Amino acid sequence: MRAVQARPRIIVIGGGFAGLWAVRGLRRAAADILLIDSRNHHTFQPLLYQVATAGLAAPSIAAPLRHILRRQSNVTVLLGQVTSLDVPQRQVRIGETAYPYDYLLVATGAAHAYFGHDEWAAHAPGLKTLEDALAMRARVLRAFERAEAAEDPAERDAWLTFIIVGAGATGVELAGTLAEIARHTLKDEFRRIDPATAHVLLVEAGPRVLPAFPEPLSANARRHLERLGVVVHTGRPITRVDERGVLIGAEPIAARTVLWAAGVAGSPLGRALGVGVDSAGRVPVTADLSIAGHPEVFVAGDLARVERPSGLVPGIAPAAKQMGHHVAQTLRARLRGTRGKPFRYRHYGLLATIGRMAAVVDLGRVRLTGVVAWWFWLVAHLFFLIGFRNRLVVLIDWANAYWTYRRDARIIVDGSP
Amino acid sequence: MRAVQARPRIIVIGGGFAGLWAVRGLRRAAADILLIDSRNHHTFQPLLYQVATAGLAAPSIAAPLRHILRRQSNVTVLLGQVTSLDVPQRQVRIGETAYPYDYLLVATGAAHAYFGHDEWAAHAPGLKTLEDALAMRARVLRAFERAEAAEDPAERDAWLTFIIVGAGATGVELAGTLAEIARHTLKDEFRRIDPATAHVLLVEAGPRVLPAFPEPLSANARRHLERLGVVVHTGRPITRVDERGVLIGAEPIAARTVLWAAGVAGSPLGRALGVGVDSAGRVPVTADLSIAGHPEVFVAGDLARVERPSGLVPGIAPAAKQMGHHVAQTLRARLRGTRGKPFRYRHYGLLATIGRMAAVVDLGRVRLTGVVAWWFWLVAHLFFLIGFRNRLVVLIDWANAYWTYRRDARIIVDGSP
Repeated sequence: MRAVQARPRIIVIGGGFAGLWAVRGLRRAAADILLIDSRNHHTFQPLLYQVATAGLAAPSIAAPLRHILRRQSNVTVLLGQVTSLDVPQRQVRIGETAYPYDYLLVATGAAHAYFGHDEWAAHAPGLKTLEDALAMRARVLRAFERAEAAEDPAERDAWLTFIIVGAGATGVELAGTLAEIARHTLKDEFRRIDPATAHVLLVEAGPRVLPAFPEPLSANARRHLERLGVVVHTGRPITRVDERGVLIGAEPIAARTVLWAAGVAGSPLGRALGVGVDSAGRVPVTADLSIAGHPEVFVAGDLARVERPSGLVPGIAPAAKQMGHHVAQTLRARLRGTRGKPFRYRHYGLLATIGRMAAVVDLGRVRLTGVVAWWFWLVAHLFFLIGFRNRLVVLIDWANAYWTYRRDARIIVDGSP
Repeated sequence: MRAVQARPRIIVIGGGFAGLWAVRGLRRAAADILLIDSRNHHTFQPLLYQVATAGLAAPSIAAPLRHILRRQSNVTVLLGQVTSLDVPQRQVRIGETAYPYDYLLVATGAAHAYFGHDEWAAHAPGLKTLEDALAMRARVLRAFERAEAAEDPAERDAWLTFIIVGAGATGVELAGTLAEIARHTLKDEFRRIDPATAHVLLVEAGPRVLPAFPEPLSANARRHLERLGVVVHTGRPITRVDERGVLIGAEPIAARTVLWAAGVAGSPLGRALGVGVDSAGRVPVTADLSIAGHPEVFVAGDLARVERPSGLVPGIAPAAKQMGHHVAQTLRARLRGTRGKPFRYRHYGLLATIGRMAAVVDLGRVRLTGVVAWWFWLVAHLFFLIGFRNRLVVLIDWANAYWTYRRDARIIVDGSP
């Protein structure tokens, strides 16, 4: 009779695209998997901006991790905040409790970077979680309320000025949607202000919007944004953010609402791995996504710095899924006693919407703009959204928003008036 | 040429059923109406418990007041918290700004009463607003998470014990739904606990559940609750609530989750009217819902104490709507120079659901129970829900929940893990 061998313990920190896809890829593995997340749900991050701009309810783009994984009996889901990592001892700690592992995947993603000005965060919130999205929604809706109540014209203008910092996909999507809300959604609802007079400014330090896209698509996106009424500033860095507004270069602009969609900072847990991080806080990984000197520790998703001939693997959902999937493959190989293959990123393309019925899509050889790109974007996002109910409800909300310009999640639920 | 007469100024405080129905009833009135609410949305309170128990997303039962009233050009909606009322001077204040009125309607509703134990509120939250509902949802979902993480069996049991205080409609609805969640929704999702072992206790100081209903319906509701696994205690008052649990009479019960659905306390603004309040903080009104000595000041909805031969007018949505409607009628009469009629409450009936596919309905001569009552409840609530999209999305969520036992709003979005 052979001694019963203990099943290997795999800990996955983070239930985003990388972590969740890794766990799912291990569904037939003879291992005990512990998935730790500080939230109880997986968030479909590509649609966060729609929650922030009141187009969708929070539950439409999130699903409880437990529910997604309920049939995968080799997984235990734990709600908790990892307080420390001990790589030499192979332990993860949540408060007083230590969880030992044989293999570890850290997939805790990234937050926004304020380029060394963390004090800007209070005035210019970012958009990475559902909490962020609900806070941003409340902030934007309340700005119009404050403008309506304001007696002083200068104050009213400051409440009606919205600045979006960073013209990547999120910044472009926020700017386009805000312009649409000001011009259409809120029509006829105010008595003292005209929401259509709101200023929406998109400010980008680099030379063009959507810098990851080919130049012609950037130019197309910019034209669409300007047609929607967005004022686009490129090549102009923000040099200050405070409660009164921003400095663009040396020019002060009074604005009570500044939204941050610039810069990336890898989750602080990355530093605890002991292999250093790059300037954006990302952890350098080896060919199979493990870290140097510790083949049992993997990093995937936005937290991983993965080189490829044409630059870094981008911080987008498909890349995170591929990495998660690859870590699962490698672990399955290791459990069989064989070696895994190196990770190869497959780039399918980039998408960004620009308000109503316009988008840009870069599929390499194929480039789409306008309405066609928008339909492509819509179908792709609906297809990848987790859960049948979500898809149906999101489709209804979008159809409704399309025909009526209404955005039915326009409720402020964070308390203070 | 006649001098232009200034249009009378009507201020309505509170955009609940009473306030909103009053404003809508004045849509053709030659008056300037100011609707003040501390929230930007009307809440469909009868379905709050479904948001609290993760069956519906918050936007499904709320609609922005501005949007509802966008076509009514004699109304200005103002988001703000009234800080004082000056009845002799006919002024309402929001911070530094005073708003004069010719007619005033105070319709700020009621909160929960803790019978002189306000310190219980922190441990036993009530359910009156969407914020309350989201906080309650997070508390309930987190309790199961804490139970899963607990190492100590006594602690685990305390996290798996849910006490609902007060067996009116809200208490019964919460208890029934919680039992359903524990036994069905969360099935297979946990690895260390069995959610079906959760204890759901419904505690009522009075002699029976649903005291406003006829006795046979109370008995029916109790049987249904017990079949769902709810332990019902009647005739047993709660004598203490703290972080460890409750005292029922002298019996201590360890429970980390206590939900409050007992008692009513009129909004504090009622006291500022200067005509006294009853023991529940409600303002006594005259036959036309104005207050004694001030025919220009009205109170409607849950804040009003309205006598009728068979007792008080109940604090339910249809009563609030009727009062709001009646105040609008009276004001229209006054604006025409005639006198209004006294308010007459029409009681159509009472409804309460008890979990899945069961309800009790009391329509006076007609009484319904079980499945028939549940269908009646469903159709009535869908019919009265504001907004087409809401109805459709709610229907999808309910159909989905019915077939699958899933509750898709099961996300915790208040931050702390």
